[in-house]
Amino acid sequence: MRILERPAPTVLDPSSVTRTEVVRPAMCGHNSLFAGQIGDWTWDAVSELCGVDVLRARTAAGDPTYLSFYYYRIRGGRAFHLRTPSFGDTLRITTRLYDFGSESVLALHRIDRGDDSLRVENLNRWISRGGGTSNETLVRASPVGFTHRHLPTLPADRSPRVACGTARTALTFLPDTRYVDASPPRRLRYPVDPSRDLNGVGLLYFASYFSIVDRALLDLYRGLGRGDTAFLDRVVVDQQLCYLGNADADCVIAIDVRHRTDRADPGREVVDVVLRDSRTDRLLAVCTLHLLTTPSDGRHP
Amino acid sequence: MRILERPAPTVLDPSSVTRTEVVRPAMCGHNSLFAGQIGDWTWDAVSELCGVDVLRARTAAGDPTYLSFYYYRIRGGRAFHLRTPSFGDTLRITTRLYDFGSESVLALHRIDRGDDSLRVENLNRWISRGGGTSNETLVRASPVGFTHRHLPTLPADRSPRVACGTARTALTFLPDTRYVDASPPRRLRYPVDPSRDLNGVGLLYFASYFSIVDRALLDLYRGLGRGDTAFLDRVVVDQQLCYLGNADADCVIAIDVRHRTDRADPGREVVDVVLRDSRTDRLLAVCTLHLLTTPSDGRHP
Repeated sequence: MRILERPAPTVLDPSSVTRTEVVRPAMCGHNSLFAGQIGDWTWDAVSELCGVDVLRARTAAGDPTYLSFYYYRIRGGRAFHLRTPSFGDTLRITTRLYDFGSESVLALHRIDRGDDSLRVENLNRWISRGGGTSNETLVRASPVGFTHRHLPTLPADRSPRVACGTARTALTFLPDTRYVDASPPRRLRYPVDPSRDLNGVGLLYFASYFSIVDRALLDLYRGLGRGDTAFLDRVVVDQQLCYLGNADADCVIAIDVRHRTDRADPGREVVDVVLRDSRTDRLLAVCTLHLLTTPSDGRHP
Repeated sequence: MRILERPAPTVLDPSSVTRTEVVRPAMCGHNSLFAGQIGDWTWDAVSELCGVDVLRARTAAGDPTYLSFYYYRIRGGRAFHLRTPSFGDTLRITTRLYDFGSESVLALHRIDRGDDSLRVENLNRWISRGGGTSNETLVRASPVGFTHRHLPTLPADRSPRVACGTARTALTFLPDTRYVDASPPRRLRYPVDPSRDLNGVGLLYFASYFSIVDRALLDLYRGLGRGDTAFLDRVVVDQQLCYLGNADADCVIAIDVRHRTDRADPGREVVDVVLRDSRTDRLLAVCTLHLLTTPSDGRHP
């Protein structure tokens, strides 16, 4: 077989596609590249199945509109999580889309690597700058040609809208009593980095939020005296991220970090990371991570 | 035409391939994603033409060996440079390989976008950790199966080895008298960021060097009072980067920045950025950038 075969995504039915990918350096590592790559697969699936080229989508008024990330969840296990894909791994990705109306779409990816799989959920919303130049005032804006009624509807109890609504008010995806504080809350400041945080249309790139969250997690690890090797070896088996705002290149983000452990299993930790515009207190994102810090069977939850 | 056609690279002759790519979010922006993407194309071309799957290459002893970046040059113009590719742009990439012996290979990419083209030169060397775990002691190590004698030889006067040798000693790719100092030299420190700088095999990712250089350039812009918008709008028409060492996650990089202008054309600026391991003074990289800071015809040199 040729080394470089690149089969195009194959349509399985009107709401799902599958593709095979070989992991290359630009899509893996101790960074957010793999999260960004999965995001491209979401856009590709919508381009393939919903009648609109997402890369060039326009509103009826002719303005560019972007299928922005509103909710991103990635679940794996000890053997296969966000940072384990490495050079040469062959992945089989199956993507199913669900109808969320004319302004949103839900994508569920199942990413198989033979030994294990990742499950990824993306809820995206069409947004436009509405004629302005700031990233702080984005508006909903569906593109011309976007078809969605042929897609199945997700049962209401599986909709991430409820989870995001809770996260917005409770500042965690886990508003229960199962977890107890493991260390004092931390706050740090992160100035948006104009040299690496913005995407090709000048928005704060959704994958950069993963890097910013990881920076906060690194700060926590260092504060706990765990060392950078422990950080690099971390096993995040579940990460939920709700995007509530975008930001301009001069924004300084205030990051609040809350660290808890599972009452029943202290080897399971959860970390909540909340991003705000430090100037206006505007909420930018809420993220909850589940970490395995002691050996266990590895699947969560 | 289907939106998602992904034609595989086509072999033009035993030393060259061509491919068409549509720019997606994960391969463009105010970051180093496009430089990383071009690097993947280098690896793909070698995999296609030189008898070895670069992603899974091994030495005769069975150790992984990596086709590491030693020299990376990218040249464009005002309309099309490293940061201009955006969502939906269609690129035609033609890559030619040249024989540099059993331990190296040179790739020349021509990237056409209709309006203009980028020319990229990559000299890569096979390196291995040699059984250790540190990134500071990498050794040359050619993989089993690597064929190169069928590739043409570049005329000696076009070899980047001379340029890199000069850069290593002169700490610039421009050791002439055409440029004059435009502002005092600057020094800053950059701790390698374990949350975003390492690739899928734990090495300091070659594309991260571009980000680190850009961070130094941002520092220069701010020091000159130019503002972040001017930085985001910068036009880098020629960038040469020689990689002289790798580094571990706990490395603090000392960065020296030198800023000069062209005597004959003050609208042409050059910036030299030198990266060293601050602990040992070991040289990690030398980079020279050419910027257009006033409108001109746009091509350089």
